[in-house]
Amino acid sequence: MSHAVSPLAPKSNPTLPAIEGVRFATAEAGIKYKNRTDVLLAIFDPGTTVAGVFTTSKCPSAPVDWCRKNLAGGTARALVVNSGNANAFTGKKGVETVTITADIAARAVGCAPSEVFLASTGVIGEPLDPTKFEGVLAETATRVADGPYIAAAEAIMTTDTFPKVATRTVDLGGVAVSINGIAKGAGMIAPDMATMLSFIFTDVAIDPAVLQGLVSAGVVDSYNALTIDGDTSTSDTVIAFATGKAAARGQAPIGSADDPRLPAFKAALEGVMLDLARLVARDGEGARKFVTVTVEGAVSKASARRIAMSIANSPLVKTAIAGEDANWGRVVMAVGKAGEPADRDRLAIWFGDVRVAVEGERDPAYSEAAASAHMKQDEIDIRVEIGLGDASDRVYTCDLTKEYVAINGDYRS
Amino acid sequence: MSHAVSPLAPKSNPTLPAIEGVRFATAEAGIKYKNRTDVLLAIFDPGTTVAGVFTTSKCPSAPVDWCRKNLAGGTARALVVNSGNANAFTGKKGVETVTITADIAARAVGCAPSEVFLASTGVIGEPLDPTKFEGVLAETATRVADGPYIAAAEAIMTTDTFPKVATRTVDLGGVAVSINGIAKGAGMIAPDMATMLSFIFTDVAIDPAVLQGLVSAGVVDSYNALTIDGDTSTSDTVIAFATGKAAARGQAPIGSADDPRLPAFKAALEGVMLDLARLVARDGEGARKFVTVTVEGAVSKASARRIAMSIANSPLVKTAIAGEDANWGRVVMAVGKAGEPADRDRLAIWFGDVRVAVEGERDPAYSEAAASAHMKQDEIDIRVEIGLGDASDRVYTCDLTKEYVAINGDYRS
Repeated sequence: MSHAVSPLAPKSNPTLPAIEGVRFATAEAGIKYKNRTDVLLAIFDPGTTVAGVFTTSKCPSAPVDWCRKNLAGGTARALVVNSGNANAFTGKKGVETVTITADIAARAVGCAPSEVFLASTGVIGEPLDPTKFEGVLAETATRVADGPYIAAAEAIMTTDTFPKVATRTVDLGGVAVSINGIAKGAGMIAPDMATMLSFIFTDVAIDPAVLQGLVSAGVVDSYNALTIDGDTSTSDTVIAFATGKAAARGQAPIGSADDPRLPAFKAALEGVMLDLARLVARDGEGARKFVTVTVEGAVSKASARRIAMSIANSPLVKTAIAGEDANWGRVVMAVGKAGEPADRDRLAIWFGDVRVAVEGERDPAYSEAAASAHMKQDEIDIRVEIGLGDASDRVYTCDLTKEYVAINGDYRS
Repeated sequence: MSHAVSPLAPKSNPTLPAIEGVRFATAEAGIKYKNRTDVLLAIFDPGTTVAGVFTTSKCPSAPVDWCRKNLAGGTARALVVNSGNANAFTGKKGVETVTITADIAARAVGCAPSEVFLASTGVIGEPLDPTKFEGVLAETATRVADGPYIAAAEAIMTTDTFPKVATRTVDLGGVAVSINGIAKGAGMIAPDMATMLSFIFTDVAIDPAVLQGLVSAGVVDSYNALTIDGDTSTSDTVIAFATGKAAARGQAPIGSADDPRLPAFKAALEGVMLDLARLVARDGEGARKFVTVTVEGAVSKASARRIAMSIANSPLVKTAIAGEDANWGRVVMAVGKAGEPADRDRLAIWFGDVRVAVEGERDPAYSEAAASAHMKQDEIDIRVEIGLGDASDRVYTCDLTKEYVAINGDYRS
C-alpha cells in the first residue's frame, strides 16, 4: 500500500555533505517489501562516540533494549536499520534475533557486537528472521560509501511518503564540523504503529557523556515536542554518532559540558533535530496541515508543554483544523482539560495573527473572514496566552483527516 | 445538521415511572434550533436534596460555576436545562445570564434562586440571551407533569442521535424507591464540543451529604469510565435530585453512610449511571462499534484505569476497531505508553474470547479467523492481562471512524 506524497513535503531537500568516518550502503533484504531497499548498514571508524534516547514505552522492542545496553560502552562501529518488521513484542525470539543480527554485523564490519546498534521498524508481533541479514550485511559492507544520505533515509521508510534529511555545519574554533541527520515516521505499516527513528552523524570530536547530555536535552523541544496522534511507539529511537574526525583537522576534542564551543554545536545539533521533527509532522498520516501550537504566559515550561500537548492531541481541535474551521472553543476546551493552572477569564487565543478570543470571551474585534483565511493555509499557527506567568512552550502536529482513519482503519477492508 | 440514528442505539427504551415530587415540562425557546424542544424545566417539591459532580476542566462554563455554588445549600427546587448554547467562555455576560435565568426560574417556580440548578449545552463563546427564558419558563411551569421522561431526554439533546434514559427500582426496608435518569452526549454542535449532561431523579429520603458521597463514588466507574475522544467538555454535569417522598410511604430517611440499606440503593443508583454512560458511548460521534476495555492483573485500580484509558483513547486502536482489525500490536503500544507498571513478557491480550497474545508474543494458537469474527460484531471486548497484580478496571468507548472526522471537521465545508 502506498500513499501519495504529502502535500506538506518540502519542495527540495538539502544535499548532505560527507561526514568523515561515516560510510554506509543500503540493500534489499526482502524482509517485507519488494523492489525497494529495506536495510541500512552504516560503518563508523574506530573512535566513534555514541549517545541515544529511546521510547518511554514500558513495552519497548528488542532492538531498543539492545541499544540501551550497548550505549553504556560509549562507542559505536556499526548501525543496522531495517524496515518491514519492528521485532517488537516477539518475546525470546526477538532477543535472539538482535543477538544474531549484531553478530552478523560485527563479523561483516570487524568489530564487537557490543559496538553494533540496531533499529527495526515495521510489523510488530511477527518474528524477524535474522538469517535474512546473513548474506546481505556482508555484501553491503563491501559497498559502503560516504553518501548519498537521501538513500539512507529512503531505506528506513515504512509508509513515510518522503525521505527526511537535515544538515548543519558549525565552526568550532576555526574548524568546520558537520552534522547530518535522517529520520522516518510517522508512517504506518499494517499491522503496526507509527515509529519515529532518527540517526545523526557528525565528525565532531566529543566525549560520549557530553554528547549524551546534548542529545537528551535536544529531544525535548524537537522530537518530544512532536505529536501525530498521541500514540507512542515501542521502537522510537534517536541515536547520534560522532566520529571525532574533525580532531585531525585541528578540532580540540570537547570533553566537558562547560566547553565554550558547546553552545554553537548544541544550536546546530538542535537545528538538525528540529528540522527532522518538523519533517515528521509534515508527513503525519493523512496530514494536510502542519500545525504549530505555542503556549505563552504559563506558570512553567512543563505546564505550557502539557497545555500545548493537550491542544495538539485533541481530536476535536485536529478535526476542526482539517475542516479549516477557526474553532477556538475547542482550544478553550483543550486548555481546560489539561489540568494545568489556567484562568478562563485571562485566556487569549490567536489563529495566525488573528486574535479570536480575549479575557474569557470572543474577541469583539474578531474577524471570521481573517481567521478563516488563515485556516486555509498549509501551515496553521495556534497561539494561546494563559496570562498567569512567563513560561512558554511550542509543539508541532498535523490535522486529523479522514485519510488518517482510512490509512489506519481501512487497510484490511 | 442531523445524523442518522446510531446503529448502536438500543432497540427499545424502558418506560420510566413517575417520581413523586418531580414534575417537568419541555418547551421550544428557539435558542438555536427550530421546530424542536430545547428547554427542560423540572420542579421539585420542597425538601428535595441534591448532589452533583462537574467537569474537571479548568475553564468551566458559567452554569457549572453556578451549580457548584448552589450545591452547598443541599436543597433544590428547580432544574433548567437548555440545548443550543452552552453559555461557556462567555465572560461576565455568562455570569449575568445564569443570574438572570435563575431569577426567572425562581419566580416561575416560587423558590429562591439558590435552589435553582442550571445546565446549558451547545455553541460555546456565543452569549446566551437570558430574556429567551422570560416568558418560556413561566409558561412551562404551568404545564409540568410527572412524565414522560423520554421527552425530557429529547429536549436536552444536541447532535445526539437518540434520547438516553434509564431506571431502577429498589426495595428499601419494604418501601419501593425509584431512580430515573436521563443523559445527553457525546453530540456535537458547531462550533462546540461534546458535552455530557446527566440528571437523576429519585424519591428516596436521603441526607444530601450521603447522596453526594454516592454520586461522587458512582461517577468513577460510569461516566468517568467513558471516553469518546479523550476530550473533556467545559460543561460536563451530573446532578441527582432526591425528593424524599418515599418517606411518606414509610421509608425512614437515610442519614448516614453506614445505613444498612445503603448498598442496595447504591447498586441501583450505579446501575442507572452505568446504563446512561454506556448509552452515551453508543451514541459517540460516528460510532459503529461499542467497545469495552478491561484491564486485569494491574498493580492498582488507578493503574488499571490509566492503562485502560490509554487503550480506549488511542487513535490507532480506535481506527483499527473501525477497520475490524484485531490489531493487538496497537494494544501493546497503548499499554506501553500508559507509563504504568507493565512487563512486555507477561502481557496477554484477548479480543472477545480469542487470546491473540500471551507472554510477550503472538499466541501460537491464535486464530485470525476467530479474532476477525469477533471484530465484525457491534460490541467489541478487549481484555488485557498485565500479570503484575490483582487490580482490574473497565472503561467504555467507541471506534474512531471517518464519520467522526466528517462530523467534527466537515460541517463548514
